[in-house]
Amino acid sequence: MNASSDLQATLDPSRKSWVESANNPTGDFSIQNLPFGIFSDGLNATRRVGVAIGDSIVDLAALESAGLLSVPSTGAGDSVFVRDALNDFIALGRDAWRSVRVQLSRLLSRDDATLRDDAELRGRALIRQADAQLHLPVQIPGYTDFYSSKEHATNVGSMFRDPKNALLPNWSEMPIGYNGRASSVVVSGTPVRRPNGQLKLPDQERPVFGACRKLDIELETGFVIGAGNALGEPVTCADAEAHIFGMVLLNDWSARDIQQWEYVPLGPFNAKTFATTISPWIVTLDALEPFRVAQPAQDPQPLAYLRHDGEHAFDITLEVTLRPQQAKEASTITRTNFKHMYWTMAQQLAHHTVSGCNTRVGDLMGSGTISGPTEDSFGSLLELTWNGKKPLELREGGTRSFIEDGDELTLAGWCQGEGYRVGFGVCAGEILPALK
Amino acid sequence: MNASSDLQATLDPSRKSWVESANNPTGDFSIQNLPFGIFSDGLNATRRVGVAIGDSIVDLAALESAGLLSVPSTGAGDSVFVRDALNDFIALGRDAWRSVRVQLSRLLSRDDATLRDDAELRGRALIRQADAQLHLPVQIPGYTDFYSSKEHATNVGSMFRDPKNALLPNWSEMPIGYNGRASSVVVSGTPVRRPNGQLKLPDQERPVFGACRKLDIELETGFVIGAGNALGEPVTCADAEAHIFGMVLLNDWSARDIQQWEYVPLGPFNAKTFATTISPWIVTLDALEPFRVAQPAQDPQPLAYLRHDGEHAFDITLEVTLRPQQAKEASTITRTNFKHMYWTMAQQLAHHTVSGCNTRVGDLMGSGTISGPTEDSFGSLLELTWNGKKPLELREGGTRSFIEDGDELTLAGWCQGEGYRVGFGVCAGEILPALK
Repeated sequence: MNASSDLQATLDPSRKSWVESANNPTGDFSIQNLPFGIFSDGLNATRRVGVAIGDSIVDLAALESAGLLSVPSTGAGDSVFVRDALNDFIALGRDAWRSVRVQLSRLLSRDDATLRDDAELRGRALIRQADAQLHLPVQIPGYTDFYSSKEHATNVGSMFRDPKNALLPNWSEMPIGYNGRASSVVVSGTPVRRPNGQLKLPDQERPVFGACRKLDIELETGFVIGAGNALGEPVTCADAEAHIFGMVLLNDWSARDIQQWEYVPLGPFNAKTFATTISPWIVTLDALEPFRVAQPAQDPQPLAYLRHDGEHAFDITLEVTLRPQQAKEASTITRTNFKHMYWTMAQQLAHHTVSGCNTRVGDLMGSGTISGPTEDSFGSLLELTWNGKKPLELREGGTRSFIEDGDELTLAGWCQGEGYRVGFGVCAGEILPALK
Repeated sequence: MNASSDLQATLDPSRKSWVESANNPTGDFSIQNLPFGIFSDGLNATRRVGVAIGDSIVDLAALESAGLLSVPSTGAGDSVFVRDALNDFIALGRDAWRSVRVQLSRLLSRDDATLRDDAELRGRALIRQADAQLHLPVQIPGYTDFYSSKEHATNVGSMFRDPKNALLPNWSEMPIGYNGRASSVVVSGTPVRRPNGQLKLPDQERPVFGACRKLDIELETGFVIGAGNALGEPVTCADAEAHIFGMVLLNDWSARDIQQWEYVPLGPFNAKTFATTISPWIVTLDALEPFRVAQPAQDPQPLAYLRHDGEHAFDITLEVTLRPQQAKEASTITRTNFKHMYWTMAQQLAHHTVSGCNTRVGDLMGSGTISGPTEDSFGSLLELTWNGKKPLELREGGTRSFIEDGDELTLAGWCQGEGYRVGFGVCAGEILPALK
């Protein structure tokens, strides 16, 4: 067996795990998935690298110190798994990620007795997710957010500019993006405080200061840079995917009223810098490989630096639920798919770097709001309620135009394989009232 | 003497140094200045903290290990001065910065024999700037750029939008800003490669790909965050200056043609992410204290969260020179002053955080292009040549509408005291041809 066939074997749909919860056909964390994250638990408060499997987490440092897991190109005694972020592991490069994936897939497979039959080590190396705390998986040197859903750009353009010319001419020529604020990217579960800011009310000449009245989500995914590029050395479209470690769910919380008043001419700022939530597990591109599909046809054909052969979209089902504070039941408010995105991740990265801009390991690149073609597949309340004109009816808790205090918003996403899923877990946040 | 009077004494205009070059009345690095940076030299390649004095650099780690400099709140044996960035030193807080300033001012003053008469230590602790290499002074977790010159915003609005309504209504209500790209901030002296990108030519329906034809500078200053704020906890306007460590010169290189095609609706991206140059020395707010002046009157009166009492502008003379590749002489292309800025640094930081956005030690906040009221005091070639319509006549090397390959652009800035200067040194970069 060579490295390539070993990697291929980790995707075998028939592979099952001795961690029985991983074999649930609608569970996120199958043995085909093996996403990376940072966790701690009640017995050990040290933040360290883990991989999700079923309802548990594998402690990679524990496996490494037991001699069951080795990482190419690290010195003896220095573990990249005892870290509060994945960056040092990611920086080892794709061969290292793949080697760890192959070793874990084997160790966790039903047929492998090594860990399965070692109760003592299993007790140390397998932690129940219910007993663990998950942390921000990467230290994020830079955060960029794109705007790559044609449906979203068209919807927003219709509402805020001109329905007849909703899509601006530059949109079809490049993956429009802007620099986000990395400092306020938080992990799923972190409460989010409703921002204060300047609001321009239609009946008043000057803005007023107060709590955002149009708080919104943006349903996005993000990709994490696995190999950076030097300043002045662009990444080509053909090479771009090799620079990507994996993907997360991303909620680009947005204060629509603050945004509308501030965003001309330099773009969104305070409307989005107060928080961005990501899911704690990074699903590798290797795990997503079976779900690769063709991207939408692009017309006009992009300029040469944005062209690539083959399929570069991924079939990822996405949904968002909203649960009011007192409600028992959450309501699904949208369901869509990542495959609708007009610009691919490879095109986004090629465009980002074509000017010479450098990227670094751990950089986060948001997809932009993912809206599908139908009214129930839009990726923001702005679009779902058409700027509040058509409130949504919840299963429990009344109606919503925008988010109310105490609401919990949860993004979920998964790829459906034959008898298994490669899932992202959830990306959730509850809204706290604004500061007085 | 208490801490406050000790600090006051460091600003005494009559204080002279035994480093004679520091007493040059038009030199940047007087004993009143004492700016912090990171350097290495031929004898010692380790990057470490230095303070500029005259034509030399004081090696703080050398003074510390000799027992002449002590830093509050650091453990024994662990020096914050042997670091490749100032962040750990800055994170110690304002009392530590001030204590080090007071100790250095005393050690370097003409009356103090301790270091002056210790030739052996002086040989180790005093490095000539000509023999040293200067590095990026801080690791920058986040970079934000404001747009706070009324003259600049009016000029750009006149050219790109509507001369009759050049200033957008939100501009007078808040310090408009946007997230910049931190990864490509480089130190003065780093060559800058002309970016490639999409250009929309007036006579063609679709954009073409190619080298920027309208490469420009933006003359700015930047401030460096000395004390961050937690997510959800805004910094008030009254507290803001206590969160600032110091200031640098900043050249926000801009590709005007790329910018004009890409910037609607999310703001500048590839037009500015290819490089931002800062000066290597951070001049502390303490050193700038004598040059505090009143900011321009603000009309309308800002909303309450943007109001502050007292004087919050600084009298800093700024100039830019351009030297073509073969030229011996550089031409001064603009001269202006930081005091013209409409929004203060305190207001910028209060606005940045009012939504709850967190900042971190080392964050860099650009002022925005600093344009004065007259045509020879504009802070960009875009304005100086009115988008190329009125080329500048150079003393040597012809005319310029925008920057040509091989041109070296140099920003300089200083505060003029009585018989001494508090200067920033230079912020320079030479343009390399675009990649083919």
